[in-house]
Amino acid sequence: MLILMRAQAPAAEVDAVCRAVEERGFRPVKLPGEDRVAIGVLGSNPISLRDAIISMPGVVDAVPVSKPFKLVGREFHPDPTIVSVGGVEIGNNHFAVMAGPCSVESEEQLMESAQAVADAGGHILRGGAFKPRTSPYSFRGMGEDGLKLLAAARQRFGLPVVTEVMNIEDVELVSQYADMLQIGARNMQNYGLLEAAGRTLRPILLKRGLSSTIEEWLLSAEYILGQGNGQVVLCERGIRTFETYTRNTLDLSAAPLVRELSHLPVIIDPSHGTGKWSLVAPMAVAALAAEASGLMVEVHPHPDHALSDGAQSLTPRHFAELMERLRLIAEPLGRRL
Amino acid sequence: MLILMRAQAPAAEVDAVCRAVEERGFRPVKLPGEDRVAIGVLGSNPISLRDAIISMPGVVDAVPVSKPFKLVGREFHPDPTIVSVGGVEIGNNHFAVMAGPCSVESEEQLMESAQAVADAGGHILRGGAFKPRTSPYSFRGMGEDGLKLLAAARQRFGLPVVTEVMNIEDVELVSQYADMLQIGARNMQNYGLLEAAGRTLRPILLKRGLSSTIEEWLLSAEYILGQGNGQVVLCERGIRTFETYTRNTLDLSAAPLVRELSHLPVIIDPSHGTGKWSLVAPMAVAALAAEASGLMVEVHPHPDHALSDGAQSLTPRHFAELMERLRLIAEPLGRRL
Amino acid sequence: MLILMRAQAPAAEVDAVCRAVEERGFRPVKLPGEDRVAIGVLGSNPISLRDAIISMPGVVDAVPVSKPFKLVGREFHPDPTIVSVGGVEIGNNHFAVMAGPCSVESEEQLMESAQAVADAGGHILRGGAFKPRTSPYSFRGMGEDGLKLLAAARQRFGLPVVTEVMNIEDVELVSQYADMLQIGARNMQNYGLLEAAGRTLRPILLKRGLSSTIEEWLLSAEYILGQGNGQVVLCERGIRTFETYTRNTLDLSAAPLVRELSHLPVIIDPSHGTGKWSLVAPMAVAALAAEASGLMVEVHPHPDHALSDGAQSLTPRHFAELMERLRLIAEPLGRRL
Amino acid sequence: MLILMRAQAPAAEVDAVCRAVEERGFRPVKLPGEDRVAIGVLGSNPISLRDAIISMPGVVDAVPVSKPFKLVGREFHPDPTIVSVGGVEIGNNHFAVMAGPCSVESEEQLMESAQAVADAGGHILRGGAFKPRTSPYSFRGMGEDGLKLLAAARQRFGLPVVTEVMNIEDVELVSQYADMLQIGARNMQNYGLLEAAGRTLRPILLKRGLSSTIEEWLLSAEYILGQGNGQVVLCERGIRTFETYTRNTLDLSAAPLVRELSHLPVIIDPSHGTGKWSLVAPMAVAALAAEASGLMVEVHPHPDHALSDGAQSLTPRHFAELMERLRLIAEPLGRRL
Repeated sequence: MLILMRAQAPAAEVDAVCRAVEERGFRPVKLPGEDRVAIGVLGSNPISLRDAIISMPGVVDAVPVSKPFKLVGREFHPDPTIVSVGGVEIGNNHFAVMAGPCSVESEEQLMESAQAVADAGGHILRGGAFKPRTSPYSFRGMGEDGLKLLAAARQRFGLPVVTEVMNIEDVELVSQYADMLQIGARNMQNYGLLEAAGRTLRPILLKRGLSSTIEEWLLSAEYILGQGNGQVVLCERGIRTFETYTRNTLDLSAAPLVRELSHLPVIIDPSHGTGKWSLVAPMAVAALAAEASGLMVEVHPHPDHALSDGAQSLTPRHFAELMERLRLIAEPLGRRL
Repeated sequence: MLILMRAQAPAAEVDAVCRAVEERGFRPVKLPGEDRVAIGVLGSNPISLRDAIISMPGVVDAVPVSKPFKLVGREFHPDPTIVSVGGVEIGNNHFAVMAGPCSVESEEQLMESAQAVADAGGHILRGGAFKPRTSPYSFRGMGEDGLKLLAAARQRFGLPVVTEVMNIEDVELVSQYADMLQIGARNMQNYGLLEAAGRTLRPILLKRGLSSTIEEWLLSAEYILGQGNGQVVLCERGIRTFETYTRNTLDLSAAPLVRELSHLPVIIDPSHGTGKWSLVAPMAVAALAAEASGLMVEVHPHPDHALSDGAQSLTPRHFAELMERLRLIAEPLGRRL
Repeated sequence: MLILMRAQAPAAEVDAVCRAVEERGFRPVKLPGEDRVAIGVLGSNPISLRDAIISMPGVVDAVPVSKPFKLVGREFHPDPTIVSVGGVEIGNNHFAVMAGPCSVESEEQLMESAQAVADAGGHILRGGAFKPRTSPYSFRGMGEDGLKLLAAARQRFGLPVVTEVMNIEDVELVSQYADMLQIGARNMQNYGLLEAAGRTLRPILLKRGLSSTIEEWLLSAEYILGQGNGQVVLCERGIRTFETYTRNTLDLSAAPLVRELSHLPVIIDPSHGTGKWSLVAPMAVAALAAEASGLMVEVHPHPDHALSDGAQSLTPRHFAELMERLRLIAEPLGRRL
Repeated sequence: MLILMRAQAPAAEVDAVCRAVEERGFRPVKLPGEDRVAIGVLGSNPISLRDAIISMPGVVDAVPVSKPFKLVGREFHPDPTIVSVGGVEIGNNHFAVMAGPCSVESEEQLMESAQAVADAGGHILRGGAFKPRTSPYSFRGMGEDGLKLLAAARQRFGLPVVTEVMNIEDVELVSQYADMLQIGARNMQNYGLLEAAGRTLRPILLKRGLSSTIEEWLLSAEYILGQGNGQVVLCERGIRTFETYTRNTLDLSAAPLVRELSHLPVIIDPSHGTGKWSLVAPMAVAALAAEASGLMVEVHPHPDHALSDGAQSLTPRHFAELMERLRLIAEPLGRRL
């Protein structure tokens, strides 16, 4: 961390700050400049000092100079993490496709969806049994009945299952049925839930919060790794911006950027990321081109009757066409599908 | 809701949409225009139709035309709600001031803070025992020991207490000690927590999510009112924008705007809203001028030793000066302090 | 446009609004609903009514129901526009690559850059002679000397030239040297400049404003088309969001979305869009995958000595590798490079 | 500036960066840390080095540590600037109110508006003769005829006049009629225009760009001061955020914040800042409470017939009520109205 002093701050103020730094176990280094002095702070986790220092006389600002995440960072873990979900690998040159309906609505709807995913060559079945909804008047999911249907679909089609868990008390229940636990965007900073899910040692899919920075997202993953669970896949699903023609703005550059910062794999959800089914295929192919580790897409046999997210769901036919298009470029780019 | 059809959409497409609307129990009204037909949808909660309709042939968009919240809205509840927290009124012409440290750190720190709040004429004591932190390496609160200190401070200074609850399993515990339960910004869409807190029938302080729209915020309040608990105070605490000179951007206009939309009182938190102690007083006085129902501000006896949020905390002296300044304009504006 | 009345608005208020609509030459249609009346407005450009209506007694809102752009829209011009810049086509299955340095700095620097662009198979040379800079203390370009160097490079390498024009009085000068005039992001709503550039009938590259919606961007293009100049290429170059790890957030979904809304071609600038050279290649390949019409990328022989944007510039070697990678997927996706 | 090296960057990389710093005339200072070396850079305007350094081997980031603005900053100009517009002072304890219609539409409309402003005690008349409009199909102002009407209103009511100039070629014309030149939000980074307006030595009203940071805003003012013109008033008019219930989000905290950073006065425009007339008065009173130097508000005799911005305009009666409310608190807060 670097502490910036006011121009012409008297030596007494500079010295008082240096003493405060030392009292807390860090080493201050004075950096005399043209019209001001700055103070470098050496030691581990100096940012914890920031609040204590920032309002001392003469201090203008305190700027962090190292990344705050440790376990998820590349610096001390240079090799990529490969997560295995019921045998499906995520994080190496395999491009993993998770697909299925937004919500599990009925046995028929789920089986038709799973059939479509399996037929087109998708790898993992997604489907929500517990649904966080902005309005209390919207459909909130089938609960455990939905979980049972997901388990039945896994049995029938041989696809591992990922599904969301919303509350700590449901972690054990959902773990009995799912191969991978999804933490949704609204819960990205629900730290009790992150730790409870982490303790299951199941693979975790951690969606980026609607308006979370990449740093906050990685720090939330740090909560999970802190429980001894390194099987974490990050999922970019669009961020909130001023643009209203799309539901969110898909920050696809997060995929190559997080590859530089972290060893954890990143997948892309173009369904929530755009909110329009016609944009899903172009952005899904772009995700492969941008070196993401995989996809999460919504597929529904009858989007116009979906209880949630119909506008952004692919039909089975469109999903099959997307898989074809992905195959066209996977091999030239050195990827397996 | 209004369904917009493509220009020159053939009658068959328009009719198919009308049938789909009817099948779901709503009444469609065709609106022929210059170069296209639009379809009005009558009935309650038509927005639930949106996903089903939006991808039908010929449909361009479906635009909601009524507000989605019922219980919190002014339309069917014109009189303002007055919330009472241990005898302190919020929502009428009283301007309620909640103040205290970000976190409860020790008995000495809390008692000094509470003394400062009481001496200067603050009404309610705030202080966090459970702290949500972006990084797992930051101080996360004293837990139940902190709650006990808050209860002791209430006993000693006669100030009702508001404190945050983060997890459903802590709701009962926190309710034993607190006069008002705070739902923090990160948990604004943690719906299980909203309902569990609502069921206690304690007054609830619902902070606006960092990047939540006013509509989403009111819908979260709707979850609480749906549990039969109408004692809800909304708290604007700054939203995330592109500006980096302030920690957040305080959306003060939310106070008069929500007054138009809802009967629930709105208070302002200029400490989190700006992140800089020197901006807290001007924005606090502005909150009174903008007809907010009260304030939440951070006060710490020694901000430069605070374990969290020192940069935005007022000293006891600055807090007393702020209360003086508020008194200067309260009476001319017809408010009691 | 749809005018929403307050619930239980009396008939007199509804009638007054209908009369106001008629007085201005539009046709009102009453839409009786469960608890309110809405009024549909028929006629051309009804949104011009909005300001007049919105504050009348009983009016809650007035919602536009058609897109405000005419000339750039797909509805009345279904075929894609193909723009030709010195013989290079943009807007069909050709993927056009514009590359070169951010600023023209010297003859040597420009010729080395142009050589690199030509050698690797780029199609159009970019380079700034007039540079808009946030700070008055930054390098602001070589002016006409820079334009002369661009013309010399065109002569030598056979590459058409695109360069920015910042002021109306420079439009004629820049037109003497450039094959395509660039309107920069900061000037996207400088309407006098848009019209002056449009009148030259040169091809125009219109960059999206840093925080412009897609609708505003298309309306700015409408200003150019309104001058009788249909040779407009749109360029997405990143929007401003809360994320700080990247310079901007590249809204790649704008490419397929604008294809639906408009007949004008869209290219992608991943250099400004990300601000980090290591992210340029992945996002450039993603642009091709997302069906953009081309690219604009910054190439500099010595990025570490660049006077502007060094951090986001590719070296000649990295640019050549990018062109190779684009070739791997162009043909499978049905594109020419 | 502080250059951050990669953890474990070899000494050769650190030395190469130090040499590059020296070559450009700055002084590097090595700051050895626990797991990495950082390099402090001393000298003036070190940020100009950033692009050159950022992509050198081993460099992770380069962080500015001083503010980039000089002339507008408080550090070297501690006393507040007082701007005088036709005798009306802005920047001391006087609270200056600029009011009038968005656009000059006719003699009758302007004279009625000016009468209302004068009667209620407003100080400066505003009104647009040249209007930047998002759509080319909207009313774009009366041009010079509008300027003449403004001059006639000044003559009749004794109010100085502020009006917008949009193009460099209009600067001289507008200067003949106006007491103060307004640079609109869309032109905040039209640097040629800033310099041309600055050279007139007229007082300049510089509106903040819709999505401009405070730093960019102050740097744009720096362009004007760089022309020897120190008579600049800054105007906060709302920034673009994700919230859609208001037209923009009024960043009122910009007033006290810019007071700390700069000696230039800041006024608030709650009309554009909120877009809803019912929110204008509360936010205007809040602006006085937050220590702003004044206001700009839209007043129209018949908002429901306004050609632009009717929804956010006050009627003469509402404006008079606002002035009354401002008077209630001006004196207690030590201000003159």
